[in-house]
Amino acid sequence: MSNGTRQPIVYPPHTRVDLRKFDPAATNGMSREEAEAELVGLRLRLNELQNMLYADARYALLVVLQGIDAAGKDGTINSVFEQVGPIGCSVVSFKAPTPEELAHDYLWRYHRVMPERGHITIFNRSYYEAVLVERVKGIVPKATWEQRYEDINRLEEYLLRNGTVVMKFFLAISKEEQRERLQERIDNPKKQWKFRLGDLEERKLWDEYLEAFEDMLERCNTKHAPWHVVPADRKWYRDVVVARTLVEKLASLGLRYPPADPAVLGLKVD
Amino acid sequence: MSNGTRQPIVYPPHTRVDLRKFDPAATNGMSREEAEAELVGLRLRLNELQNMLYADARYALLVVLQGIDAAGKDGTINSVFEQVGPIGCSVVSFKAPTPEELAHDYLWRYHRVMPERGHITIFNRSYYEAVLVERVKGIVPKATWEQRYEDINRLEEYLLRNGTVVMKFFLAISKEEQRERLQERIDNPKKQWKFRLGDLEERKLWDEYLEAFEDMLERCNTKHAPWHVVPADRKWYRDVVVARTLVEKLASLGLRYPPADPAVLGLKVD
Repeated sequence: MSNGTRQPIVYPPHTRVDLRKFDPAATNGMSREEAEAELVGLRLRLNELQNMLYADARYALLVVLQGIDAAGKDGTINSVFEQVGPIGCSVVSFKAPTPEELAHDYLWRYHRVMPERGHITIFNRSYYEAVLVERVKGIVPKATWEQRYEDINRLEEYLLRNGTVVMKFFLAISKEEQRERLQERIDNPKKQWKFRLGDLEERKLWDEYLEAFEDMLERCNTKHAPWHVVPADRKWYRDVVVARTLVEKLASLGLRYPPADPAVLGLKVD
Repeated sequence: MSNGTRQPIVYPPHTRVDLRKFDPAATNGMSREEAEAELVGLRLRLNELQNMLYADARYALLVVLQGIDAAGKDGTINSVFEQVGPIGCSVVSFKAPTPEELAHDYLWRYHRVMPERGHITIFNRSYYEAVLVERVKGIVPKATWEQRYEDINRLEEYLLRNGTVVMKFFLAISKEEQRERLQERIDNPKKQWKFRLGDLEERKLWDEYLEAFEDMLERCNTKHAPWHVVPADRKWYRDVVVARTLVEKLASLGLRYPPADPAVLGLKVD
Protein backbone atom coordinates (compact mmCIF):
# COMPACT_ATOMS: atom_id res chain seq x y z
CA MET A 1 0.00 0.00 0.00
CA SER A 2 1.42 3.38 -0.94
CA ASN A 3 1.56 6.14 1.63
CA GLY A 4 -1.00 8.10 -0.35
CA THR A 5 -3.83 5.59 0.27
CA ARG A 6 -5.52 5.66 3.64
CA GLN A 7 -5.37 2.36 5.46
CA PRO A 8 -8.32 2.01 7.84
CA ILE A 9 -7.75 1.68 11.59
CA VAL A 10 -11.24 0.30 12.25
CA TYR A 11 -13.07 -2.17 10.00
CA PRO A 12 -16.75 -3.11 9.82
CA PRO A 13 -17.62 -5.78 12.41
CA HIS A 14 -16.28 -9.25 11.65
CA THR A 15 -14.26 -8.16 8.60
CA ARG A 16 -11.22 -10.32 8.01
CA VAL A 17 -8.04 -8.23 7.92
CA ASP A 18 -5.29 -9.81 5.81
CA LEU A 19 -2.26 -8.99 7.91
CA ARG A 20 0.07 -10.08 5.09
CA LYS A 21 -1.29 -7.20 3.02
CA PHE A 22 -1.49 -4.76 5.92
CA ASP A 23 1.26 -2.12 5.91
CA PRO A 24 2.69 -1.77 9.46
CA ALA A 25 4.80 1.20 8.29
CA ALA A 26 1.79 3.16 7.02
CA THR A 27 1.42 6.70 8.29
CA ASN A 28 -1.57 7.69 6.18
CA GLY A 29 0.29 10.65 4.77
CA MET A 30 1.28 12.06 8.15
CA SER A 31 4.80 13.31 8.79
CA ARG A 32 6.73 12.72 11.98
CA GLU A 33 6.69 16.44 12.78
CA GLU A 34 2.91 16.62 12.39
CA ALA A 35 2.43 13.55 14.56
CA GLU A 36 4.69 14.78 17.33
CA ALA A 37 3.03 18.19 17.37
CA GLU A 38 -0.43 16.65 17.52
CA LEU A 39 0.62 14.24 20.26
CA VAL A 40 1.61 17.06 22.61
CA GLY A 41 -1.94 18.38 22.58
CA LEU A 42 -3.53 14.95 22.69
CA ARG A 43 -1.64 14.00 25.85
CA LEU A 44 -2.82 17.13 27.66
CA ARG A 45 -6.37 16.58 26.47
CA LEU A 46 -6.25 12.94 27.60
CA ASN A 47 -5.23 14.10 31.06
CA GLU A 48 -8.15 16.56 31.21
CA LEU A 49 -10.57 13.90 30.08
CA GLN A 50 -9.21 11.44 32.63
CA ASN A 51 -9.81 14.01 35.38
CA MET A 52 -13.40 14.42 34.16
CA LEU A 53 -13.91 10.66 33.92
CA TYR A 54 -12.76 10.46 37.54
CA ALA A 55 -14.98 13.29 38.77
CA ASP A 56 -17.96 12.11 36.73
CA ALA A 57 -17.63 8.52 38.02
CA ARG A 58 -20.27 7.05 35.71
CA TYR A 59 -17.92 5.22 33.35
CA ALA A 60 -14.77 3.16 33.58
CA LEU A 61 -12.34 2.78 30.70
CA LEU A 62 -10.58 -0.48 29.88
CA VAL A 63 -7.74 -0.16 27.36
CA VAL A 64 -6.57 -3.47 25.87
CA LEU A 65 -3.18 -3.62 24.14
CA GLN A 66 -2.18 -6.65 22.11
CA GLY A 67 0.66 -7.28 19.72
CA ILE A 68 3.49 -9.69 19.13
CA ASP A 69 6.67 -9.50 21.26
CA ALA A 70 8.38 -6.11 20.84
CA ALA A 71 5.32 -4.60 19.12
CA GLY A 72 5.66 -1.65 21.50
CA LYS A 73 2.97 -2.16 24.14
CA ASP A 74 5.07 -0.69 26.97
CA GLY A 75 6.30 2.16 24.80
CA THR A 76 2.76 3.07 23.77
CA ILE A 77 1.61 3.21 27.38
CA ASN A 78 4.55 5.36 28.45
CA SER A 79 4.08 7.78 25.59
CA VAL A 80 0.30 8.11 25.31
CA PHE A 81 -0.31 8.34 29.07
CA GLU A 82 2.71 10.53 29.78
CA GLN A 83 0.58 13.41 31.08
CA VAL A 84 -2.01 11.27 32.84
CA GLY A 85 -1.36 11.06 36.58
CA PRO A 86 -1.31 7.68 38.34
CA ILE A 87 -4.38 8.47 40.45
CA GLY A 88 -7.20 6.81 38.58
CA CYS A 89 -5.00 5.25 35.88
CA SER A 90 -3.27 1.91 36.33
CA VAL A 91 -1.63 -0.77 34.23
CA VAL A 92 -1.91 -4.50 34.66
CA SER A 93 0.73 -6.58 32.88
CA PHE A 94 -0.34 -10.20 32.64
CA LYS A 95 2.25 -12.93 32.91
CA ALA A 96 1.86 -16.70 32.82
CA PRO A 97 -1.05 -17.61 35.12
CA THR A 98 -0.33 -18.71 38.69
CA PRO A 99 -1.64 -22.03 40.07
CA GLU A 100 -4.43 -20.11 41.84
CA GLU A 101 -5.42 -18.42 38.57
CA LEU A 102 -5.29 -21.71 36.67
CA ALA A 103 -7.62 -23.23 39.26
CA HIS A 104 -10.32 -20.76 38.12
CA ASP A 105 -12.09 -20.18 34.82
CA TYR A 106 -9.80 -18.39 32.39
CA LEU A 107 -11.52 -14.98 32.58
CA TRP A 108 -11.41 -14.83 36.40
CA ARG A 109 -8.03 -13.18 36.75
CA TYR A 110 -8.96 -10.47 34.26
CA HIS A 111 -12.37 -9.73 35.70
CA ARG A 112 -11.10 -9.13 39.22
CA VAL A 113 -8.80 -6.30 38.09
CA MET A 114 -11.29 -4.47 35.87
CA PRO A 115 -11.38 -0.70 36.47
CA GLU A 116 -13.85 0.75 38.93
CA ARG A 117 -16.01 3.61 37.66
CA GLY A 118 -13.98 6.80 37.21
CA HIS A 119 -10.80 4.85 36.54
CA ILE A 120 -8.74 3.83 33.52
CA THR A 121 -7.10 0.41 33.56
CA ILE A 122 -4.70 -0.55 30.80
CA PHE A 123 -4.29 -4.26 30.10
CA ASN A 124 -0.76 -4.89 28.82
CA ARG A 125 -1.77 -8.18 27.20
CA SER A 126 -5.21 -9.40 28.20
CA TYR A 127 -7.80 -12.16 28.07
CA TYR A 128 -7.05 -12.28 24.34
CA GLU A 129 -3.99 -14.35 25.25
CA ALA A 130 -6.51 -17.16 25.73
CA VAL A 131 -6.97 -17.21 21.93
CA LEU A 132 -3.36 -16.28 21.10
CA VAL A 133 -0.53 -17.91 23.06
CA GLU A 134 -2.79 -20.66 24.41
CA ARG A 135 -3.87 -21.49 20.87
CA VAL A 136 -0.51 -21.15 19.14
CA LYS A 137 1.38 -23.16 21.73
CA GLY A 138 -1.36 -25.78 21.95
CA ILE A 139 -1.92 -25.17 25.65
CA VAL A 140 -5.62 -25.82 25.14
CA PRO A 141 -7.27 -27.86 22.33
CA LYS A 142 -9.08 -26.21 19.43
CA ALA A 143 -12.47 -27.22 20.80
CA THR A 144 -11.71 -25.10 23.84
CA TRP A 145 -10.27 -21.97 22.26
CA GLU A 146 -12.89 -21.96 19.50
CA GLN A 147 -15.57 -21.14 22.07
CA ARG A 148 -13.61 -18.35 23.66
CA TYR A 149 -14.20 -15.72 20.97
CA GLU A 150 -17.87 -15.76 21.84
CA ASP A 151 -17.13 -15.74 25.60
CA ILE A 152 -15.03 -12.65 25.06
CA ASN A 153 -17.62 -10.90 22.91
CA ARG A 154 -20.22 -11.54 25.59
CA LEU A 155 -17.91 -10.29 28.33
CA GLU A 156 -17.20 -7.06 26.45
CA GLU A 157 -20.87 -6.48 25.68
CA TYR A 158 -21.67 -7.06 29.34
CA LEU A 159 -18.94 -4.66 30.47
CA LEU A 160 -20.13 -1.89 28.17
CA ARG A 161 -23.72 -2.34 29.35
CA ASN A 162 -22.45 -1.93 32.91
CA GLY A 163 -20.48 1.24 32.31
CA THR A 164 -17.04 -0.03 31.29
CA VAL A 165 -15.99 1.24 27.88
CA VAL A 166 -13.59 -1.22 26.21
CA MET A 167 -10.99 0.17 23.76
CA LYS A 168 -8.87 -2.43 21.99
CA PHE A 169 -5.65 -1.77 20.09
CA PHE A 170 -3.73 -4.28 18.06
CA LEU A 171 -0.20 -3.03 17.40
CA ALA A 172 0.96 -4.40 14.04
CA ILE A 173 4.68 -4.51 13.28
CA SER A 174 6.56 -6.17 10.42
CA LYS A 175 8.72 -9.22 10.93
CA GLU A 176 11.78 -7.16 10.01
CA GLU A 177 10.89 -4.50 12.58
CA GLN A 178 10.60 -7.20 15.25
CA ARG A 179 14.02 -8.52 14.23
CA GLU A 180 15.59 -5.10 14.70
CA ARG A 181 13.94 -4.55 18.06
CA LEU A 182 14.93 -7.96 19.43
CA GLN A 183 18.48 -7.42 18.17
CA GLU A 184 18.54 -4.07 19.98
CA ARG A 185 17.53 -5.80 23.21
CA ILE A 186 20.43 -8.21 22.82
CA ASP A 187 22.97 -5.53 21.94
CA ASN A 188 21.97 -2.72 24.35
CA PRO A 189 23.06 -3.42 27.96
CA LYS A 190 20.16 -1.28 29.23
CA LYS A 191 17.67 -3.48 27.39
CA GLN A 192 19.16 -6.94 27.87
CA TRP A 193 17.01 -7.59 30.93
CA LYS A 194 13.96 -7.48 28.65
CA PHE A 195 15.26 -10.30 26.44
CA ARG A 196 14.73 -14.02 26.98
CA LEU A 197 15.99 -16.85 24.83
CA GLY A 198 12.38 -17.98 24.56
CA ASP A 199 11.69 -14.82 22.52
CA LEU A 200 13.49 -16.43 19.58
CA GLU A 201 11.36 -19.58 19.85
CA GLU A 202 8.25 -17.40 19.80
CA ARG A 203 9.53 -15.59 16.71
CA LYS A 204 9.67 -18.90 14.84
CA LEU A 205 5.90 -19.09 15.33
CA TRP A 206 5.37 -15.78 13.47
CA ASP A 207 2.98 -17.25 10.87
CA GLU A 208 0.96 -19.11 13.48
CA TYR A 209 0.57 -15.92 15.51
CA LEU A 210 -0.46 -14.00 12.39
CA GLU A 211 -3.29 -16.42 11.79
CA ALA A 212 -4.38 -16.27 15.42
CA PHE A 213 -4.34 -12.45 15.27
CA GLU A 214 -6.42 -12.49 12.08
CA ASP A 215 -9.02 -14.72 13.71
CA MET A 216 -9.11 -12.54 16.80
CA LEU A 217 -9.46 -9.36 14.71
CA GLU A 218 -12.26 -10.89 12.68
CA ARG A 219 -14.27 -12.68 15.32
CA CYS A 220 -13.98 -10.13 18.14
CA ASN A 221 -14.31 -6.98 16.07
CA THR A 222 -17.79 -6.04 17.23
CA LYS A 223 -19.94 -2.95 17.11
CA HIS A 224 -19.78 -2.50 20.89
CA ALA A 225 -16.02 -3.13 21.14
CA PRO A 226 -14.23 -2.67 17.81
CA TRP A 227 -10.59 -3.57 17.29
CA HIS A 228 -8.26 -0.75 16.26
CA VAL A 229 -5.55 -2.09 13.97
CA VAL A 230 -2.60 0.25 14.46
CA PRO A 231 0.38 0.39 12.08
CA ALA A 232 3.14 0.31 14.67
CA ASP A 233 6.49 0.22 12.86
CA ARG A 234 6.67 4.01 13.26
CA LYS A 235 6.34 4.67 16.97
CA TRP A 236 5.31 8.30 16.47
CA TYR A 237 2.41 7.31 14.21
CA ARG A 238 1.35 4.47 16.50
CA ASP A 239 1.19 6.83 19.49
CA VAL A 240 -0.81 9.50 17.73
CA VAL A 241 -3.35 6.94 16.49
CA VAL A 242 -3.87 5.46 19.95
CA ALA A 243 -4.01 8.84 21.69
CA ARG A 244 -6.40 10.33 19.14
CA THR A 245 -8.72 7.33 19.34
CA LEU A 246 -8.88 7.48 23.14
CA VAL A 247 -9.45 11.24 23.17
CA GLU A 248 -12.26 11.00 20.62
CA LYS A 249 -13.95 8.21 22.55
CA LEU A 250 -13.73 9.93 25.94
CA ALA A 251 -14.88 13.23 24.43
CA SER A 252 -17.96 11.46 23.05
CA LEU A 253 -19.15 10.25 26.47
CA GLY A 254 -20.55 13.61 27.59
CA LEU A 255 -18.46 13.62 30.75
CA ARG A 256 -19.21 16.41 33.21
CA TYR A 257 -18.32 17.53 36.71
CA PRO A 258 -21.14 16.32 38.95
CA PRO A 259 -23.42 19.13 40.13
CA ALA A 260 -22.90 20.20 43.75
CA ASP A 261 -25.18 19.24 46.59
CA PRO A 262 -27.52 22.30 46.85
CA ALA A 263 -26.73 22.42 50.59
CA VAL A 264 -23.11 23.19 49.71
CA LEU A 265 -23.61 26.13 47.37
CA GLY A 266 -22.67 29.45 48.92
CA LEU A 267 -21.37 27.92 52.18
CA LYS A 268 -18.61 29.84 53.98
CA VAL A 269 -15.89 27.86 55.75
CA ASP A 270 -15.03 29.14 59.26
CA MET B 1 10.15 30.76 62.30
CA SER B 2 11.70 33.19 59.86
CA ASN B 3 12.39 32.12 56.31
CA GLY B 4 16.12 32.42 56.99
CA THR B 5 16.22 29.54 59.50
CA ARG B 6 16.22 26.02 58.11
CA GLN B 7 13.36 23.91 59.41
CA PRO B 8 14.28 20.20 59.37
CA ILE B 9 12.31 17.76 57.22
CA VAL B 10 13.55 14.71 59.11
CA TYR B 11 14.04 14.52 62.89
CA PRO B 12 15.99 12.07 65.04
CA PRO B 13 13.95 8.91 65.77
CA HIS B 14 11.10 9.41 68.24
CA THR B 15 11.53 13.20 68.49
CA ARG B 16 8.30 15.01 69.28
CA VAL B 17 7.52 17.65 66.64
CA ASP B 18 5.42 20.51 68.01
CA LEU B 19 3.12 21.15 65.07
CA ARG B 20 1.87 24.39 66.66
CA LYS B 21 5.39 25.76 66.28
CA PHE B 22 6.01 24.18 62.90
CA ASP B 23 5.84 26.62 59.98
CA PRO B 24 3.80 25.06 57.12
CA ALA B 25 4.69 28.02 54.89
CA ALA B 26 8.45 27.54 55.32
CA THR B 27 10.49 27.29 52.14
CA ASN B 28 13.93 27.20 53.75
CA GLY B 29 15.06 30.19 51.73
CA MET B 30 14.05 28.73 48.38
CA SER B 31 12.22 30.85 45.81
CA ARG B 32 9.37 29.59 43.68
CA GLU B 33 11.47 29.96 40.53
CA GLU B 34 14.30 27.89 42.01
CA ALA B 35 11.89 25.20 43.16
CA GLU B 36 10.13 24.95 39.82
CA ALA B 37 13.41 24.75 37.93
CA GLU B 38 14.74 22.04 40.23
CA LEU B 39 11.48 20.09 39.99
CA VAL B 40 11.73 19.75 36.21
CA GLY B 41 15.00 17.86 36.57
CA LEU B 42 13.85 15.86 39.59
CA ARG B 43 10.80 14.55 37.73
CA LEU B 44 12.94 13.29 34.85
CA ARG B 45 15.42 11.75 37.25
CA LEU B 46 12.62 10.05 39.16
CA ASN B 47 11.38 8.51 35.94
CA GLU B 48 14.87 7.18 35.13
CA LEU B 49 15.24 5.75 38.62
CA GLN B 50 11.82 4.12 38.41
CA ASN B 51 12.86 2.43 35.16
CA MET B 52 15.98 1.13 36.88
CA LEU B 53 14.03 0.00 39.93
CA TYR B 54 11.79 -1.95 37.54
CA ALA B 55 14.64 -3.54 35.58
CA ASP B 56 16.65 -4.25 38.74
CA ALA B 57 13.66 -5.91 40.47
CA ARG B 58 15.37 -6.31 43.84
CA TYR B 59 13.48 -3.58 45.69
CA ALA B 60 9.94 -2.27 45.89
CA LEU B 61 9.11 1.28 46.96
CA LEU B 62 6.14 2.15 49.15
CA VAL B 63 5.35 5.86 49.35
CA VAL B 64 3.00 6.83 52.18
CA LEU B 65 1.24 10.20 52.07
CA GLN B 66 -0.64 11.51 55.07
CA GLY B 67 -2.08 14.90 55.88
CA ILE B 68 -5.32 16.50 56.94
CA ASP B 69 -8.12 17.02 54.39
CA ALA B 70 -6.98 19.31 51.55
CA ALA B 71 -3.32 18.99 52.58
CA GLY B 72 -2.53 18.25 48.92
CA LYS B 73 -2.00 14.50 48.74
CA ASP B 74 -3.52 14.16 45.26
CA GLY B 75 -1.74 17.28 44.01
CA THR B 76 1.61 16.01 45.26
CA ILE B 77 1.16 12.69 43.47
CA ASN B 78 0.14 14.34 40.20
CA SER B 79 3.05 16.76 40.29
CA VAL B 80 5.93 14.64 41.61
CA PHE B 81 5.09 11.58 39.48
CA GLU B 82 4.18 13.57 36.36
CA GLN B 83 6.99 12.01 34.31
CA VAL B 84 6.73 8.52 35.77
CA GLY B 85 4.79 6.17 33.51
CA PRO B 86 1.96 4.04 34.90
CA ILE B 87 3.79 0.75 34.23
CA GLY B 88 5.33 -0.09 37.55
CA CYS B 89 3.81 2.84 39.45
CA SER B 90 0.35 2.75 40.98
CA VAL B 91 -1.69 4.62 43.53
CA VAL B 92 -4.05 3.15 46.09
CA SER B 93 -6.51 5.60 47.67
CA PHE B 94 -8.00 4.14 50.81
CA LYS B 95 -11.60 4.91 51.67
CA ALA B 96 -13.72 3.74 54.60
CA PRO B 97 -13.17 -0.02 54.99
CA THR B 98 -15.67 -2.43 53.44
CA PRO B 99 -17.43 -5.12 55.51
CA GLU B 100 -14.95 -7.68 54.11
CA GLU B 101 -12.01 -5.52 55.16
CA LEU B 102 -13.51 -4.92 58.60
CA ALA B 103 -13.83 -8.67 59.03
CA HIS B 104 -10.02 -8.94 58.90
CA ASP B 105 -7.25 -7.53 61.08
CA TYR B 106 -6.75 -3.83 60.38
CA LEU B 107 -3.48 -4.19 58.42
CA TRP B 108 -4.86 -6.83 56.05
CA ARG B 109 -6.21 -4.51 53.40
CA TYR B 110 -2.93 -2.59 53.22
CA HIS B 111 -0.68 -5.63 53.12
CA ARG B 112 -2.45 -7.21 50.15
CA VAL B 113 -1.79 -4.18 47.93
CA MET B 114 1.88 -3.69 48.80
CA PRO B 115 4.13 -3.20 45.76
CA GLU B 116 5.82 -6.18 44.17
CA ARG B 117 9.58 -5.89 43.64
CA GLY B 118 10.40 -3.45 40.84
CA HIS B 119 7.24 -1.43 41.49
CA ILE B 120 6.31 1.80 43.23
CA THR B 121 3.01 1.94 45.08
CA ILE B 122 1.78 5.21 46.52
CA PHE B 123 -0.61 5.01 49.45
CA ASN B 124 -2.92 8.02 49.35
CA ARG B 125 -3.75 7.70 53.06
CA SER B 126 -2.57 4.46 54.62
CA TYR B 127 -2.52 2.17 57.64
CA TYR B 128 -1.75 5.33 59.62
CA GLU B 129 -5.48 6.10 59.47
CA ALA B 130 -5.73 3.40 62.15
CA VAL B 131 -4.07 5.84 64.58
CA LEU B 132 -5.61 8.98 63.07
CA VAL B 133 -9.28 8.94 62.06
CA GLU B 134 -10.00 5.80 64.09
CA ARG B 135 -8.51 7.46 67.15
CA VAL B 136 -9.93 10.95 66.68
CA LYS B 137 -13.45 9.76 65.94
CA GLY B 138 -13.35 7.17 68.71
CA ILE B 139 -13.93 4.27 66.29
CA VAL B 140 -11.65 2.12 68.43
CA PRO B 141 -10.82 2.59 72.15
CA LYS B 142 -7.50 3.96 73.33
CA ALA B 143 -6.35 0.53 74.53
CA THR B 144 -6.61 -0.63 70.90
CA TRP B 145 -5.00 2.27 69.03
CA GLU B 146 -2.24 2.57 71.62
CA GLN B 147 -0.83 -0.78 70.52
CA ARG B 148 -0.94 0.05 66.84
CA TYR B 149 2.12 2.30 66.74
CA GLU B 150 4.26 -0.68 67.60
CA ASP B 151 2.41 -2.94 65.11
CA ILE B 152 3.15 -0.39 62.40
CA ASN B 153 6.82 -0.03 63.36
CA ARG B 154 7.19 -3.79 63.21
CA LEU B 155 5.43 -3.99 59.86
CA GLU B 156 7.68 -1.32 58.35
CA GLU B 157 10.83 -2.96 59.73
CA TYR B 158 9.66 -6.28 58.29
CA LEU B 159 8.92 -4.72 54.90
CA LEU B 160 12.34 -3.10 54.68
CA ARG B 161 14.05 -6.36 55.62
CA ASN B 162 12.15 -8.01 52.77
CA GLY B 163 13.04 -5.49 50.10
CA THR B 164 10.29 -2.88 50.36
CA VAL B 165 11.63 0.60 51.06
CA VAL B 166 9.06 2.69 52.93
CA MET B 167 9.10 6.48 52.41
CA LYS B 168 6.63 8.44 54.54
CA PHE B 169 5.57 12.03 53.98
CA PHE B 170 3.41 14.09 56.29
CA LEU B 171 2.05 17.14 54.47
CA ALA B 172 1.63 19.95 57.00
CA ILE B 173 -0.69 22.84 56.15
CA SER B 174 -1.98 25.68 58.32
CA LYS B 175 -5.58 25.89 59.44
CA GLU B 176 -6.01 29.06 57.37
CA GLU B 177 -4.63 27.31 54.27
CA GLN B 178 -7.14 24.49 54.76
CA ARG B 179 -9.93 27.06 55.08
CA GLU B 180 -8.96 28.62 51.74
CA ARG B 181 -8.72 25.27 49.97
CA LEU B 182 -12.08 24.02 51.27
CA GLN B 183 -13.69 27.35 50.32
CA GLU B 184 -12.24 26.96 46.82
CA ARG B 185 -13.83 23.51 46.56
CA ILE B 186 -17.20 25.01 47.44
CA ASP B 187 -16.89 27.96 45.08
CA ASN B 188 -15.30 26.31 42.02
CA PRO B 189 -17.80 24.23 40.01
CA LYS B 190 -14.94 22.00 38.80
CA LYS B 191 -14.00 21.17 42.37
CA GLN B 192 -17.39 20.87 44.05
CA TRP B 193 -17.46 17.12 43.51
CA LYS B 194 -14.50 16.84 45.92
CA PHE B 195 -16.37 18.55 48.75
CA ARG B 196 -18.56 16.85 51.30
CA LEU B 197 -20.47 18.46 54.16
CA GLY B 198 -18.64 16.06 56.47
CA ASP B 199 -15.40 17.90 55.63
CA LEU B 200 -16.59 20.79 57.85
CA GLU B 201 -17.23 18.41 60.75
CA GLU B 202 -13.71 17.04 60.36
CA ARG B 203 -12.32 20.56 60.38
CA LYS B 204 -13.83 21.14 63.81
CA LEU B 205 -11.57 18.33 65.06
CA TRP B 206 -8.42 20.20 63.95
CA ASP B 207 -6.79 20.17 67.41
CA GLU B 208 -7.55 16.51 68.00
CA TYR B 209 -6.00 15.63 64.63
CA LEU B 210 -2.93 17.73 65.43
CA GLU B 211 -2.35 15.73 68.59
CA ALA B 212 -2.83 12.43 66.76
CA PHE B 213 -0.37 13.57 64.07
CA GLU B 214 2.17 14.54 66.71
CA ASP B 215 1.93 11.13 68.35
CA MET B 216 2.25 9.40 64.99
CA LEU B 217 5.27 11.52 64.03
CA GLU B 218 6.93 10.80 67.36
CA ARG B 219 6.19 7.14 67.85
CA CYS B 220 6.59 5.96 64.25
CA ASN B 221 9.59 8.06 63.30
CA THR B 222 12.12 5.24 63.21
CA LYS B 223 15.58 4.76 61.83
CA HIS B 224 14.37 2.25 59.22
CA ALA B 225 11.34 4.31 58.17
CA PRO B 226 11.65 8.00 59.12
CA TRP B 227 8.79 10.45 58.75
CA HIS B 228 9.39 13.41 56.45
CA VAL B 229 7.54 16.46 57.75
CA VAL B 230 6.86 18.59 54.69
CA PRO B 231 5.81 22.25 54.89
CA ALA B 232 2.92 22.11 52.42
CA ASP B 233 1.25 25.52 52.31
CA ARG B 234 3.41 26.36 49.26
CA LYS B 235 2.70 23.62 46.74
CA TRP B 236 5.90 24.27 44.78
CA TYR B 237 8.06 23.81 47.87
CA ARG B 238 6.13 20.73 49.00
CA ASP B 239 6.64 19.09 45.60
CA VAL B 240 10.35 19.77 45.42
CA VAL B 241 10.90 18.39 48.94
CA VAL B 242 9.04 15.16 48.19
CA ALA B 243 10.64 14.69 44.77
CA ARG B 244 14.15 15.41 46.06
CA THR B 245 13.74 13.01 48.97
CA LEU B 246 12.56 10.19 46.70
CA VAL B 247 15.32 10.78 44.16
CA GLU B 248 18.01 10.77 46.86
CA LYS B 249 16.67 7.56 48.37
CA LEU B 250 16.37 5.69 45.07
CA ALA B 251 19.80 6.92 43.97
CA SER B 252 21.27 5.48 47.19
CA LEU B 253 20.06 1.93 46.51
CA GLY B 254 22.73 1.10 43.94
CA LEU B 255 20.17 0.15 41.29
CA ARG B 256 21.55 -1.38 38.11
CA TYR B 257 20.36 -3.06 34.94
CA PRO B 258 20.69 -6.82 35.53
CA PRO B 259 23.58 -8.40 33.61
CA ALA B 260 22.56 -10.40 30.54
CA ASP B 261 22.45 -14.18 30.41
CA PRO B 262 25.88 -15.08 28.89
CA ALA B 263 24.05 -17.25 26.34
CA VAL B 264 22.41 -14.10 24.98
CA LEU B 265 25.50 -11.96 24.40
CA GLY B 266 26.42 -11.63 20.73
CA LEU B 267 23.36 -13.53 19.47
CA LYS B 268 22.06 -12.57 16.02
CA VAL B 269 18.31 -12.63 15.42
CA ASP B 270 17.24 -14.27 12.12
